[in-house]
Amino acid sequence: MTSLSPLSDQSPVVQAAYRARAAAADLAPLPRAAKDDALLAMADALEVRTAEIVEANAVDVAKARAAGTSESVVDRLTLTPERIRAIAADVRDVAALPDPVGEVVRGSTLPNGIDLRQVRVPLGVVGIIYEARPNVTVDAAALCLKSGNAVLLRGSSSAYASNTALVRVLRDAVGGSGLPADAVQLVPGESRDSVGELMRARGMVDVLIPRGGASLIRTVVEQSTVPVIETGTGNCHVYVDATADLDMAVAILLNSKAQRPSVCNAAETLLVHQDIAEAFLPRALEALAEAGVTVHGDERVLAYAEGSKATVVAATAEDWETEYLSYDIAAAVVDSLETAVHHIRLWSSGHTEAIVTSSQQAARRFTQLVDSAAVAVNASTRFTDGGQFGFGAEIGISTQKLHARGPMGLPELTSTKYIVTGDGHIR
Amino acid sequence: MTSLSPLSDQSPVVQAAYRARAAAADLAPLPRAAKDDALLAMADALEVRTAEIVEANAVDVAKARAAGTSESVVDRLTLTPERIRAIAADVRDVAALPDPVGEVVRGSTLPNGIDLRQVRVPLGVVGIIYEARPNVTVDAAALCLKSGNAVLLRGSSSAYASNTALVRVLRDAVGGSGLPADAVQLVPGESRDSVGELMRARGMVDVLIPRGGASLIRTVVEQSTVPVIETGTGNCHVYVDATADLDMAVAILLNSKAQRPSVCNAAETLLVHQDIAEAFLPRALEALAEAGVTVHGDERVLAYAEGSKATVVAATAEDWETEYLSYDIAAAVVDSLETAVHHIRLWSSGHTEAIVTSSQQAARRFTQLVDSAAVAVNASTRFTDGGQFGFGAEIGISTQKLHARGPMGLPELTSTKYIVTGDGHIR
Repeated sequence: MTSLSPLSDQSPVVQAAYRARAAAADLAPLPRAAKDDALLAMADALEVRTAEIVEANAVDVAKARAAGTSESVVDRLTLTPERIRAIAADVRDVAALPDPVGEVVRGSTLPNGIDLRQVRVPLGVVGIIYEARPNVTVDAAALCLKSGNAVLLRGSSSAYASNTALVRVLRDAVGGSGLPADAVQLVPGESRDSVGELMRARGMVDVLIPRGGASLIRTVVEQSTVPVIETGTGNCHVYVDATADLDMAVAILLNSKAQRPSVCNAAETLLVHQDIAEAFLPRALEALAEAGVTVHGDERVLAYAEGSKATVVAATAEDWETEYLSYDIAAAVVDSLETAVHHIRLWSSGHTEAIVTSSQQAARRFTQLVDSAAVAVNASTRFTDGGQFGFGAEIGISTQKLHARGPMGLPELTSTKYIVTGDGHIR
Repeated sequence: MTSLSPLSDQSPVVQAAYRARAAAADLAPLPRAAKDDALLAMADALEVRTAEIVEANAVDVAKARAAGTSESVVDRLTLTPERIRAIAADVRDVAALPDPVGEVVRGSTLPNGIDLRQVRVPLGVVGIIYEARPNVTVDAAALCLKSGNAVLLRGSSSAYASNTALVRVLRDAVGGSGLPADAVQLVPGESRDSVGELMRARGMVDVLIPRGGASLIRTVVEQSTVPVIETGTGNCHVYVDATADLDMAVAILLNSKAQRPSVCNAAETLLVHQDIAEAFLPRALEALAEAGVTVHGDERVLAYAEGSKATVVAATAEDWETEYLSYDIAAAVVDSLETAVHHIRLWSSGHTEAIVTSSQQAARRFTQLVDSAAVAVNASTRFTDGGQFGFGAEIGISTQKLHARGPMGLPELTSTKYIVTGDGHIR
């Protein structure tokens, strides 16, 4: 038998991927208890070595401040002892979740007597590309380890010192538990090149999950030869049907838009059936104004704004496709439920759309016709979330249709294999 | 509301994809009966219009013969009235299968009273890129229609006349049943450009499934921005463990290699535990020789070939990764089950690997450690097949880990969406 060209000839990213593959092979057959022990050791180590992590984080924070980074971004980058305790608690929560690996998805005895079982197995090596949120480093490592996967973490270079410290602490804990430390690796190097190498590591990396802004995700989707799971872009719609309860519609609209505007399941467009526009829109515009929301309305919405204290500006085509992530909302009056569905099909990112209606027929038709990861009936768009759905944890929210759609929990980090057992069966 | 740039400015492939999207939106909410009616109409039309199809096929066959195409390829290209009857029967079989769309995959009432359901929905628009097998045109159209998907068919240019006739017949039947004819479309144009446009149609085509040779699949995987499901390459292994029953091992080896060498689930490499090599290899080499199989052996295998009538040549590294699809097999003696697993991890395409063993521990260890779509214990590799697995039909055998792995039936042609139903729930 021969071997491939020596590993030392390969780039550092490829070398990391090879080590991850070897670690993944060791992780795959491990029972739950071994993985949970490592997760609990990770949580403990994060708490014990908080000072070391905070010190490294201070380097990143100082750099970010010197570079004039906005305070909201600096805030997301910052680790405090309290935040580290919360992150450690999240790791313990992951340990408490059931292990998806080994679950028999289907099974039967075939007519010829062969026993067929389809069982969940780890994906193998998962690459995560993300922005300056050090908590993602730990979350992703914990979810991947629990599901038997090795993880290659490629965080923002602006969090490199924090991530280096966190991964050092996590690897020590994993290794100390007798598992391969290479199950958790930071992709070496801070340059853009390392992202490119990760995207071309087909055959060594089983899936890439980009988490972050739309442009990052688009780049990865377009350039990666490694399979990608697209996450997170949410141009979510609230459609107020002709028969909607007005109080309910106002409450759902406000909650969907303004409870936390910076997240992907916040609403970005309001569509109102023409038959309810006169009763609903003046109330809605007033409520949005009180919440500090600027409305980007079509002509019919603008007409209802006259004389109101609401901030309403004229919408352009761009507004229909914009994920504001701010106190802004696009709004249009539509002729029918079908027009609303058409608008959503044309402009939505396929994350979450809500209908507010008292009509059973309208609810059924909307849920049938709208093709998004989640369709809400008389509920806020904000419920599309792994925690809310009871998954216990979430690696991201997929807006694509292949492999996983919607909030991704531990089972979405697995594949399956078929076990075919016979007594010497041949065809 | 504005619209996108006029469709007439787009390329024919993009226009076809737009029409497919519209058709897919119409198909998605259809009940099973409507789709089955269309499938039965398709089957009837294939039989009624056999003459028209055979005539078109004769053009392709004549061209292929004139170009000096091998008789085995010409045979796969050829349609006869009898073959068309068999293809129509397959379409009726698809109509008889359960509809995956609408299946509730999971569901629960959340602690806050929201009802959550995850239901199967069509993928949308499926692109199939395949070689000169006109039966795939009909198979793929039937499976996609049944699962509520519109299909864009991109067959080999050498079957263009046949595919054009088949798709005309199918579209007439679909349209005649009141469903959108654009649910079944041949990708316009015979040139390579149309494949490129299909691969770049992200957002319009939901998944591409290449079916055919390794180089076609590699090209699509590397160049497509549309998500791809990799199918079909099978470098399958038979591992004969130290404790194998010798008769069983010979039978499984012969069946896996020689029952139908041209298919992806045929074995391409034999690995033999050193402790059984002396008892097994002389018998195996003799049986393989009788079946006309050439063995590409490592040094230890070559030693057993001395004095035998078997055709054994020295293996090179290339042999370990070759999918022969012919009466050839690579063979090596390994020190242990672990060495066999290591060899498989290094060289396998991840399709199917079989172990022949009498040891419960060895069977369990092999199925745990081998990371392929199917792992067979005391059964031929040839069982990895949608028909054998009881799926009723198969669009291909996935060798990747994302979305689908192993034989892909109707459920693998679907995605899911979450339906979130409340009574005015907000966070």
